[in-house]
Amino acid sequence: MPRTAVVLLSGGMDSAVVLAWMQREGFDCIALSIDYGQRHRIELDCARRVAARARVREHIVQSIDLRIVGASALTSDIPVPKRGASRGEIPITYVPARNLLFLSCALGLAEARSARDIAIGVNSLDYSGYPDCRPQFIESFERTANLATRAGVEALKGQSWFKVHAPLGSLSKRGIVELGRTLGVDFDLTISCYDPSPDGLACLECDACRLRALGFSSTP
Amino acid sequence: MPRTAVVLLSGGMDSAVVLAWMQREGFDCIALSIDYGQRHRIELDCARRVAARARVREHIVQSIDLRIVGASALTSDIPVPKRGASRGEIPITYVPARNLLFLSCALGLAEARSARDIAIGVNSLDYSGYPDCRPQFIESFERTANLATRAGVEALKGQSWFKVHAPLGSLSKRGIVELGRTLGVDFDLTISCYDPSPDGLACLECDACRLRALGFSSTP
Repeated sequence: MPRTAVVLLSGGMDSAVVLAWMQREGFDCIALSIDYGQRHRIELDCARRVAARARVREHIVQSIDLRIVGASALTSDIPVPKRGASRGEIPITYVPARNLLFLSCALGLAEARSARDIAIGVNSLDYSGYPDCRPQFIESFERTANLATRAGVEALKGQSWFKVHAPLGSLSKRGIVELGRTLGVDFDLTISCYDPSPDGLACLECDACRLRALGFSSTP
Repeated sequence: MPRTAVVLLSGGMDSAVVLAWMQREGFDCIALSIDYGQRHRIELDCARRVAARARVREHIVQSIDLRIVGASALTSDIPVPKRGASRGEIPITYVPARNLLFLSCALGLAEARSARDIAIGVNSLDYSGYPDCRPQFIESFERTANLATRAGVEALKGQSWFKVHAPLGSLSKRGIVELGRTLGVDFDLTISCYDPSPDGLACLECDACRLRALGFSSTP
């Protein structure tokens, strides 16, 4: 019987590749998307399409309102930076503790569904800017997850129960596109833009749009 | 200028004591309550009353629907055990990854409000049963929090930025009542019951009611 995994699915290209990767690894996947009041809420429609195409066992959209927290261009009226954010700084599109929250949601769902595996599409480009995309964060989360849960504690007789998969860790955007194509991902179902128009057109100028374009332009 | 802290406030007695304790320590407190679809949702009304009485700077009620996850007597139709759950086991009132989720919400809010301090009312009685009330979980969360966040990463030149306060750690229920009385907590504003009637009357038979009664009966 295949092992069940919970895959965080945003509607963007990275997590679509992760979902395909986990399925190729033989996991029976439950997709989890988070409606957190993001400016680019239209990505949830993309997540639904990706989940349906991948024929996941279950797709859950969980709501957490992060607009009451704010302090990010994605969850407040702060404008999304266009044409290149300053390098070497954490961009204003950073959402406080977002990946920790999302992984915690995934963990709760995994435990409730008797799954041990969680997957997230963090990658090397993101963690040049976002603290919660770095491998040391993911490793620390995994340790905490095994202390936070019934399943983790009951299993902790020498080995850890929950595993967090971050298969894009060392890939560039180009590498992600290439991997996705190998896995048959239909990138047309996904959206990357942080600041789309009301009818879902990408702005083509935010960091996310520029990284996406980079991924495709440099791929044969 | 007093340091700001985010205090998780459930509406129960423990977190009311923690809020009073943090205020006595000199913190300017923001109270955070989570509407997670709990059976005893009436506790949120109590949280509002406690927050108002304590004159907190801000009281935020954040929603996360954990009923779609289920697998707990508090978030599904599984009955709440009455008259003594089996000792030595983790009770069915355990909610998968709940304290990790709540602390993650508190962390995001703290970072957004430029606060470094978070407080939670876990205590020694709880951690005989709930894995996410144990000191080793709280310590691991604190390490993860400092890796998960912009503020944590920018400050991590040798010391950690965020601190998680769990001042009830070693207290019994009786000790908590005594501490609360010293701090002037009005316990009449709080509720402990996991399975109250629709009009908010405590069942007096669930674990939470029994522990509350124990706390008061043994106090002069």
